[in-house]
Amino acid sequence: MTENSPQPASSGNCQIRENIQRMRGYAPGEQPRVGKVIKLNTNENPFPPSDKVVQAIQQTATAALQRYPDAFATPFRIAAAQHWGVEPEWILAGNGSDDLLTILTRTFVGENEKIRYPYPSYVLYRTLAEIQGAEYDEVLFRKDWTLGPEWTAPTDGLRLMFLPNPNSPSGTRFSKEQIRDWADQITCPLVVDEAYADFSQESCVELVRDCNNVIVTRTLSKSYGLAGLRFGYLVAQPELVTQLAKVKDSYNCDTLSIAAATAALMDQDWLSQNLQSIQSNRKLLSQGLTECGFEVQPSEANFVWCTHPKQHHQTLYQQLKDQGILVRYMDYPNWGDGLRISVGTSDQIQALLAVLQHLGVPS
Amino acid sequence: MTENSPQPASSGNCQIRENIQRMRGYAPGEQPRVGKVIKLNTNENPFPPSDKVVQAIQQTATAALQRYPDAFATPFRIAAAQHWGVEPEWILAGNGSDDLLTILTRTFVGENEKIRYPYPSYVLYRTLAEIQGAEYDEVLFRKDWTLGPEWTAPTDGLRLMFLPNPNSPSGTRFSKEQIRDWADQITCPLVVDEAYADFSQESCVELVRDCNNVIVTRTLSKSYGLAGLRFGYLVAQPELVTQLAKVKDSYNCDTLSIAAATAALMDQDWLSQNLQSIQSNRKLLSQGLTECGFEVQPSEANFVWCTHPKQHHQTLYQQLKDQGILVRYMDYPNWGDGLRISVGTSDQIQALLAVLQHLGVPS
Repeated sequence: MTENSPQPASSGNCQIRENIQRMRGYAPGEQPRVGKVIKLNTNENPFPPSDKVVQAIQQTATAALQRYPDAFATPFRIAAAQHWGVEPEWILAGNGSDDLLTILTRTFVGENEKIRYPYPSYVLYRTLAEIQGAEYDEVLFRKDWTLGPEWTAPTDGLRLMFLPNPNSPSGTRFSKEQIRDWADQITCPLVVDEAYADFSQESCVELVRDCNNVIVTRTLSKSYGLAGLRFGYLVAQPELVTQLAKVKDSYNCDTLSIAAATAALMDQDWLSQNLQSIQSNRKLLSQGLTECGFEVQPSEANFVWCTHPKQHHQTLYQQLKDQGILVRYMDYPNWGDGLRISVGTSDQIQALLAVLQHLGVPS
Repeated sequence: MTENSPQPASSGNCQIRENIQRMRGYAPGEQPRVGKVIKLNTNENPFPPSDKVVQAIQQTATAALQRYPDAFATPFRIAAAQHWGVEPEWILAGNGSDDLLTILTRTFVGENEKIRYPYPSYVLYRTLAEIQGAEYDEVLFRKDWTLGPEWTAPTDGLRLMFLPNPNSPSGTRFSKEQIRDWADQITCPLVVDEAYADFSQESCVELVRDCNNVIVTRTLSKSYGLAGLRFGYLVAQPELVTQLAKVKDSYNCDTLSIAAATAALMDQDWLSQNLQSIQSNRKLLSQGLTECGFEVQPSEANFVWCTHPKQHHQTLYQQLKDQGILVRYMDYPNWGDGLRISVGTSDQIQALLAVLQHLGVPS
């Protein structure tokens, strides 16, 4: 695949839409398939999922896969509704939260209309605007990762706002009160993307009840250790869920993932223990990086954003990679660069810190 | 969920796109979750999938689900390429072939542009046009399920054509030569939707090599007995695959389904035996229905389309349902109605025919 190479304007009789032609295509984080690599680059959970999830999958493997799945992932919906204290009609399941972000875009945003989101944040938001033929309005974070008044300023054609909370790559979070204020000021839906919220102290799900323009998306990829499963969901008022459901693929979630996700959500003991480990390892990682001279952004996610006043970040990334440690080098035009490092096991963190010391960081 | 009830023009501060508001939403075939029902309404395979698929799933359940899946389903891609005698770059995997039909629509068709497809056929094609804010041009099948010259007639804004082959609900198929002729005449991509092609005698995959505007979609839902898994793929020239890949979700297929689909495709012995059973049962079903006075369309799929000159189809559907046998009643505006009956096991077919006789059909 050479998805980043320049493409002809059309391929024979197949005319590609111009907005698609112009796109470079998303480059996923490196996923080495061979060799022994310490993988701290895509914010996966370093621990395998709950045994109950594995059992649910193994049992479901013999349970009539020749039949279509439940079109609304009903067992999961019921479990998620119970978890959040809402009715099942407030929940919509998706093939990863990316699927839900796609559905939201297609429901609210037409060609040449506008999506707003903070920058730097999740690169998919821009991709979704581009695929839709829509415009995007990137509001720059201040250096302290707060947002200025332009975040809620009215603008023509604005149809949807995405707010990752906690944000990636920063790991920072806005308070529920702040988000409620913003939701009251704006006249379009505000999607709070809570992919990393389990690692923090607060969720905006309860805002959904009071604010009819707040929609919260969640994923099982990070905190439940199920990135390979592709399962996410959103919480929104039922009238919105009804509209969004028109845009999803009829059977967007499969039988195995519905069973696995339901088992995962019902094993909150596993989640609590996992979160405790991640939070404790996050502290270890942040302290270690600080001791190596990095400026480390306090994080409420399962990764940390760090910059080093004396080191060249891309070189560091490459040196770590050469030693079998993958972190994410991020270079944001008009913003700056740095390293985003996922919280691994304590062994992985020790290995990372040892390599940094060996490389002469601090230098 | 009341997804078919009328909706307000906007929900608070959330303005739904007009094309979405107008939609009724897809109503999937009934999927009873309780009780003992003979289910012949959604063209599922009546047999469970290969044991090798089950094993692949059970093994993969313990194989690092905390990691993201392979973004291009590489093991499956390699297997499918080998199966069809192309390079892996000709294959794109999807979360069911519905995912691929969605990707195709978003790649080729902008707002107010046009999709053409025959009618009656797969209702999703219209849904995809509606979601995209595009127009649709439904070309009516003649009574013998052939298509007139309007099928290839030029029209403004035409960007994509879908041809299900074999078609549902008819089970009929056009020859490869006919489709090659059409592809040469038109100036847009022609997607041959081969969801049911394994049950027939011919595939158009080899056309993809010669015709740069032919794209073939396939699914593992029907012939491989894996509707619950959500896995499909398309075969297209590599330059097109590169463009289509920009539009898919980054990780559209999950780790379990990639492993399962690869195992399924590699077990061609299972497929051959399964197809033999289905084809033999299809004969049984068609003969039995003919003896009951139905006019049965000769089928190359895993279902048959039948009409009865003396019976009220919807009443028959309801009477069968009351006896625990679900078939699909289809009423196509501007066309007519009838019953689409999936090919079940021989026991299921005997049960259906017995109920029909008990109901006094033939009458």
